[in-house]
Amino acid sequence: MSTNTAENKAAAVIAYAFPWPGWVMTNNYTHHTAPTQFVEAGSIRFAYRRFGAKLDIPLLFFMHFTGTMDHWDPAVTDGFAQDREVILFDNAGVSSSSSDVPTSVEEMAQHAAAFIDALGIKKVDALGFSIGGTVAQQLTIDRPDLVRKLILVGTGPRGGEGMASFTPEAQEIFGAKYDPPDELWLRVFFTPSEPSQAAGRKYLERQRARKENRDPLPNERVAPAQAAALQKWGAPTNDPYVYLKRITQPTLVVNGSNDVLVYTVNSFILQQNLPNAQLILYPDANHGSQYQYPELFVAHATLFLNA
Amino acid sequence: MSTNTAENKAAAVIAYAFPWPGWVMTNNYTHHTAPTQFVEAGSIRFAYRRFGAKLDIPLLFFMHFTGTMDHWDPAVTDGFAQDREVILFDNAGVSSSSSDVPTSVEEMAQHAAAFIDALGIKKVDALGFSIGGTVAQQLTIDRPDLVRKLILVGTGPRGGEGMASFTPEAQEIFGAKYDPPDELWLRVFFTPSEPSQAAGRKYLERQRARKENRDPLPNERVAPAQAAALQKWGAPTNDPYVYLKRITQPTLVVNGSNDVLVYTVNSFILQQNLPNAQLILYPDANHGSQYQYPELFVAHATLFLNA
Repeated sequence: MSTNTAENKAAAVIAYAFPWPGWVMTNNYTHHTAPTQFVEAGSIRFAYRRFGAKLDIPLLFFMHFTGTMDHWDPAVTDGFAQDREVILFDNAGVSSSSSDVPTSVEEMAQHAAAFIDALGIKKVDALGFSIGGTVAQQLTIDRPDLVRKLILVGTGPRGGEGMASFTPEAQEIFGAKYDPPDELWLRVFFTPSEPSQAAGRKYLERQRARKENRDPLPNERVAPAQAAALQKWGAPTNDPYVYLKRITQPTLVVNGSNDVLVYTVNSFILQQNLPNAQLILYPDANHGSQYQYPELFVAHATLFLNA
Repeated sequence: MSTNTAENKAAAVIAYAFPWPGWVMTNNYTHHTAPTQFVEAGSIRFAYRRFGAKLDIPLLFFMHFTGTMDHWDPAVTDGFAQDREVILFDNAGVSSSSSDVPTSVEEMAQHAAAFIDALGIKKVDALGFSIGGTVAQQLTIDRPDLVRKLILVGTGPRGGEGMASFTPEAQEIFGAKYDPPDELWLRVFFTPSEPSQAAGRKYLERQRARKENRDPLPNERVAPAQAAALQKWGAPTNDPYVYLKRITQPTLVVNGSNDVLVYTVNSFILQQNLPNAQLILYPDANHGSQYQYPELFVAHATLFLNA
């Protein structure tokens, strides 16, 4: 029987023998077991988790409004981790990461770039959800060298439709009380239909299933700062979509048919204005369509990433 | 060594032993070798071809404006035929089928239903391209029992945007001369970009590769009759999209990012108004996006059909 020490030695031999880009080394971590690690970049201490098959290009996840690493769906992250390395992180000021949340997407993108550089990573695939999708867009424009492919989920362009402020639906949903409080996400991510709500309850179960070393909920300064950044991003301008021509990376745009947080038409606008974008919209789905159809989403995104 | 007779006997034994829905029997035919067969329905003699894995539900293809069975892309039809039975046919009055082309989508859908009934088939998955997508929609409304799932490619709803007549781009494209004449399809199906045109030339090569028993080109009465039917379908009305609520079958809507024959926004409109539809738009693609990305399209559609 092998001991842990013997296994470690075997892994070291394998790593030495197959050191080229594309060689595979899996760690045994999953969404639930990956430890929270830290890396310093300037004055900021970033929290992150890494797991999955260690190919040459990891998939870096950019989180939604007020979300922590624990808000990602294990069915999605572990699904991707079968084929590639997954990296989750808290951007500056959120949950386990130090400093303050800036009030612009541009600063958030600078922080993300600093985090990637601090890890010594030269190229990522970027998956951005909601405000995370705006940060991923901005990062791709600022540092095109860092991003191979882009996945934009439940997000929109600068000056997108209904993006100058929170939508009326979002104001109502975020203004209501929930017991337990995380049932908020049943309304943010899912439609009122019975099948969508049932999928939402399964998402919540999966999301709650990490018991050890969860990320703390964000402090009270996070939501106003992120809201201010979103408001600047969504402010109407002349020719708001011209900037999208600068994102030449292959992009996959994904959303639900009925996103009431960032209206679905914004996903169509992204696809129509990005030079090289595929669009997938899922039926009877709201802002969190990727959590309603996690296996299908991972299959679609894997086809895109592996193409 | 087995003889053909021995193989036939073995196949008969297998067919007898596994007669339940879902059992697999493949014939050896492909897009290029499947013979044109005929079936009578009332006064009409329909031409069709069948090939592929004989599962319980075949995939029936509905052809575009002035197209014959030979205009389908073998990379698509043979791609699907790995997993399921594929049926191509000429609707009434087109190419090898007798009678005249009617001047309404409703009559075309009645003919299609008569063809399916004549084959003794109780349920199909329907893949409709362009005008074929309008016929597949109408068939699904008229005979919901016949259709399990629907794939709508490069098509639009009744009263869709720019559908009251041929688009200006379509008028220019169909009005020009091509040498050889089938290079028309390079402009109908593909964008002007170099990669799209290169994909188009590969499509034409694949499409021309069937040498034996090709379908004759349609006679001069086909285009005007189909154009009249399209014009009625596209005529503006009040609340033109309400009828889509009656199509409750799972539907996959597919198009290119820049369809200039049936504007891409019509695919978005279909998805937004159908009760249970997924939308996929491909980058840098025109009316024939499924021929530009045949492997990806088959992979996406197979995920949809097998879900």
